[in-house]
Amino acid sequence: MMIDIQNQPDFRNIPIDKVGIKGLKHPVIVRDKANGSQSTVAEVNMYVDLPHQCKGTHMSRFVELLHTVNTPVSLDSLTSILEDMKASLGAKSAHIDISFPYFIEKTSPCTQSKGLMDYNCTIIGSSNGRKKADIVLKVAVPVTSVCPCSKEISDYGAHNQRGEVLVAARFHKFIWIEEIVNLVEQAASCDIYSVLKRADEKYVTEKAYNNPKFVEDIVRDVAKVLIEDSNITWFSVSAENFESIHNHSAYAYIEHSRD
Amino acid sequence: MMIDIQNQPDFRNIPIDKVGIKGLKHPVIVRDKANGSQSTVAEVNMYVDLPHQCKGTHMSRFVELLHTVNTPVSLDSLTSILEDMKASLGAKSAHIDISFPYFIEKTSPCTQSKGLMDYNCTIIGSSNGRKKADIVLKVAVPVTSVCPCSKEISDYGAHNQRGEVLVAARFHKFIWIEEIVNLVEQAASCDIYSVLKRADEKYVTEKAYNNPKFVEDIVRDVAKVLIEDSNITWFSVSAENFESIHNHSAYAYIEHSRD
Amino acid sequence: MMIDIQNQPDFRNIPIDKVGIKGLKHPVIVRDKANGSQSTVAEVNMYVDLPHQCKGTHMSRFVELLHTVNTPVSLDSLTSILEDMKASLGAKSAHIDISFPYFIEKTSPCTQSKGLMDYNCTIIGSSNGRKKADIVLKVAVPVTSVCPCSKEISDYGAHNQRGEVLVAARFHKFIWIEEIVNLVEQAASCDIYSVLKRADEKYVTEKAYNNPKFVEDIVRDVAKVLIEDSNITWFSVSAENFESIHNHSAYAYIEHSRD
Amino acid sequence: MMIDIQNQPDFRNIPIDKVGIKGLKHPVIVRDKANGSQSTVAEVNMYVDLPHQCKGTHMSRFVELLHTVNTPVSLDSLTSILEDMKASLGAKSAHIDISFPYFIEKTSPCTQSKGLMDYNCTIIGSSNGRKKADIVLKVAVPVTSVCPCSKEISDYGAHNQRGEVLVAARFHKFIWIEEIVNLVEQAASCDIYSVLKRADEKYVTEKAYNNPKFVEDIVRDVAKVLIEDSNITWFSVSAENFESIHNHSAYAYIEHSRD
Repeated sequence: MMIDIQNQPDFRNIPIDKVGIKGLKHPVIVRDKANGSQSTVAEVNMYVDLPHQCKGTHMSRFVELLHTVNTPVSLDSLTSILEDMKASLGAKSAHIDISFPYFIEKTSPCTQSKGLMDYNCTIIGSSNGRKKADIVLKVAVPVTSVCPCSKEISDYGAHNQRGEVLVAARFHKFIWIEEIVNLVEQAASCDIYSVLKRADEKYVTEKAYNNPKFVEDIVRDVAKVLIEDSNITWFSVSAENFESIHNHSAYAYIEHSRD
Repeated sequence: MMIDIQNQPDFRNIPIDKVGIKGLKHPVIVRDKANGSQSTVAEVNMYVDLPHQCKGTHMSRFVELLHTVNTPVSLDSLTSILEDMKASLGAKSAHIDISFPYFIEKTSPCTQSKGLMDYNCTIIGSSNGRKKADIVLKVAVPVTSVCPCSKEISDYGAHNQRGEVLVAARFHKFIWIEEIVNLVEQAASCDIYSVLKRADEKYVTEKAYNNPKFVEDIVRDVAKVLIEDSNITWFSVSAENFESIHNHSAYAYIEHSRD
Repeated sequence: MMIDIQNQPDFRNIPIDKVGIKGLKHPVIVRDKANGSQSTVAEVNMYVDLPHQCKGTHMSRFVELLHTVNTPVSLDSLTSILEDMKASLGAKSAHIDISFPYFIEKTSPCTQSKGLMDYNCTIIGSSNGRKKADIVLKVAVPVTSVCPCSKEISDYGAHNQRGEVLVAARFHKFIWIEEIVNLVEQAASCDIYSVLKRADEKYVTEKAYNNPKFVEDIVRDVAKVLIEDSNITWFSVSAENFESIHNHSAYAYIEHSRD
Repeated sequence: MMIDIQNQPDFRNIPIDKVGIKGLKHPVIVRDKANGSQSTVAEVNMYVDLPHQCKGTHMSRFVELLHTVNTPVSLDSLTSILEDMKASLGAKSAHIDISFPYFIEKTSPCTQSKGLMDYNCTIIGSSNGRKKADIVLKVAVPVTSVCPCSKEISDYGAHNQRGEVLVAARFHKFIWIEEIVNLVEQAASCDIYSVLKRADEKYVTEKAYNNPKFVEDIVRDVAKVLIEDSNITWFSVSAENFESIHNHSAYAYIEHSRD
């Protein structure tokens, strides 16, 4: 009979907040508004707490548990995964975050050409004791931004660039990744497509030029919508512009909690 | 009628070797030895040549073409994608590379626990004129390596670490990703698993200790198998050890061409 | 006279928590315990708050201000940089973080061979209103860890690997990067060197084997020292092992506040 | 007396092309046209060949040798490092590549504001037998590019973005990093600065708009200058635009040899 070192007592009297596995790549099926579900590949972190009197956790159980998940990964299913983690590891608290590229078919604005856009998403769940699990959705949305200052002071043209808007949100009722994507894309100078024919390119160029935005404008316009949405209980939003005139980014960040 | 700038003549008299799109994320289905096919997510680069008298290529066609691919991506299907690229862009040469994590179910050596291992793979196709397309398969295999020097000079123990073996190969007949993975895993001190129970952990620890390998040994043992395989017409193999006693890697590389 | 768009009023009534520049690369001189100072290269983020009635901040002032810093960057000098940021931008709060590789000469344990070890460090300062600035030091220390379970259950050998221990700390009085490095290196199975001759390699192999540690052990042993140090007012410590038998990491995390 | 495993004979009859260390971080001093030299931080790879009859190389000697380099790292000094590597390791061939951010002070075009721009550079040296060492300089230059198609077809505005131009070159006589930077910056729609005041921003916006360039144009205009420079014996140039209207890049590549 092999000794179980992890199960031995520990005398340092120091509980551990999080212990588990990090950076595991795993294929996942996620809920998809248009198609029911989609296949993608995730990077997963899974942790539980460890009380002061226990020497170690059982790392293999995290991976085994992930293998048994047989429903699409979504904000809905995180709670039961967290409960399974606590039961399997004998823990009081559990944490999981699952990051994956998520694809949405977009139709170009003029020629109706279809293409897939990719958005990096993370769903994060934490469960602590008997309280309801804390669930956060994070969505990164690439956008176009045109600089209002550059447009105003220049006789023609205006510098613009790709930016990334990152929204994290807590909520009462389930929200779709697509909802976050849509509201961010409407707050940018213009949204981004994978396929644009020439008529589309004229459209997005002119739309963006008509709609110049600082990173400050983008985070405020996203924040405005989220503040007005009573389903959102907390959010943070950042905008990062990969400036075309600099080798660094412009950045803005707002965090907001209801009550 | 909109002017087509890309179609205008160019007078600099300089042909371009490769022009196209880089870093496009796209969900793909790839051929899988055990299950027929698997869903994963790829990063794709697609280029064609541009003759000296043409000003620009048509970037949107690359993405549109990728959307029309409706057979599993594999070494087999690259040739027809390359032909489609040349036809669509009016080019003489075409290049595509598709990188993706590929998952293989592995059973642990003692307790038969099942888990998925991920291997980063790239399939690369180049077609130049009327010649047969040049196809290369690249597979990165994480491994365990135990240092033979450390084992020999120490009274007990031996430093070991995760390493990555990267094989690129050209071949006569189709080869499976699984074949490359298998031969590399046999050339390491021990192969790697996502789930190992205690009996498995004892097994892999002792197997690795019994089988110490420098990076030099690993590349030579992989090379030996590939040299003896008459289906392989060219290969390179590198081994990189993320040394546990240093903050840099040990590295070895062999390239070999059959005549 | 050019219009100053950033200076225009804003009517959305939404203050911005952080706005500024991100990802700027800049050569810096940092305080060094052994040599007084050392030259390295930093990545810098600088933000201020923006009140609800202001449309935008002045991005160029951040970079100009960084150029005027003429004392070595250190925990000591952050406060004055933060004050300069608030004054220059007319802001109430300011935040800066500066990340850089930091080099320490280490002598190998047996042959006394000298080599440089690199540690990724970040110094973070935040100033909010009239309160004393909040300063955090983060140091990432690569280490060797030997698995206690693997050692115990195996007839010979034990899997080990490179790991990274990340300490973040708040403190009363100035602390050296070297102090954090030293206490972490003593909590690992063995510390890491850039140059090891054979006699040294025997030493570190045997020392590590005699001193097996889970990630749980490493964070607890680091935490124990930091809890006992009354100069430390808050800390977090994580340990991540790049497992040699898996393609994912083992991870543990403790956060502690001296309330 | 400890056994020297690396020095034992090998019977697999397979020589190794490259063996050594990879990913070592090291502070370096590099030659600087304006100031004589500058301090920066490099990532270094160093390899030698290993004949078929030798089991292993001596990894610690690479790091020791790097520590003895006491002249500024430059294209000039690589040859002597390569000779030292061959002598120290008893090898016939040696390879080193040293990558580092390199800083150049630039003055903004209107307000003469000074700022530092960073350029990622690599110097690569290979020595094989008695032949003259093969030295390559690689410089990555971030630039602004305005899309000629978008400008032409749109009633106003034009999408633009940050791009990166990567030049690799072989040459007869020493060339400065600054020379490559200058010629690339002149081939872009506009060059990039770290500090731009409003008058400067107007200038670069209008200059870029007046000077639209596809990736195809940028690589051709760089190639044109390099082809005409009889000091350059070989070069490759790529341009990658981080498209503001897409989430992927546009890319072009030319390679040219002065036979």
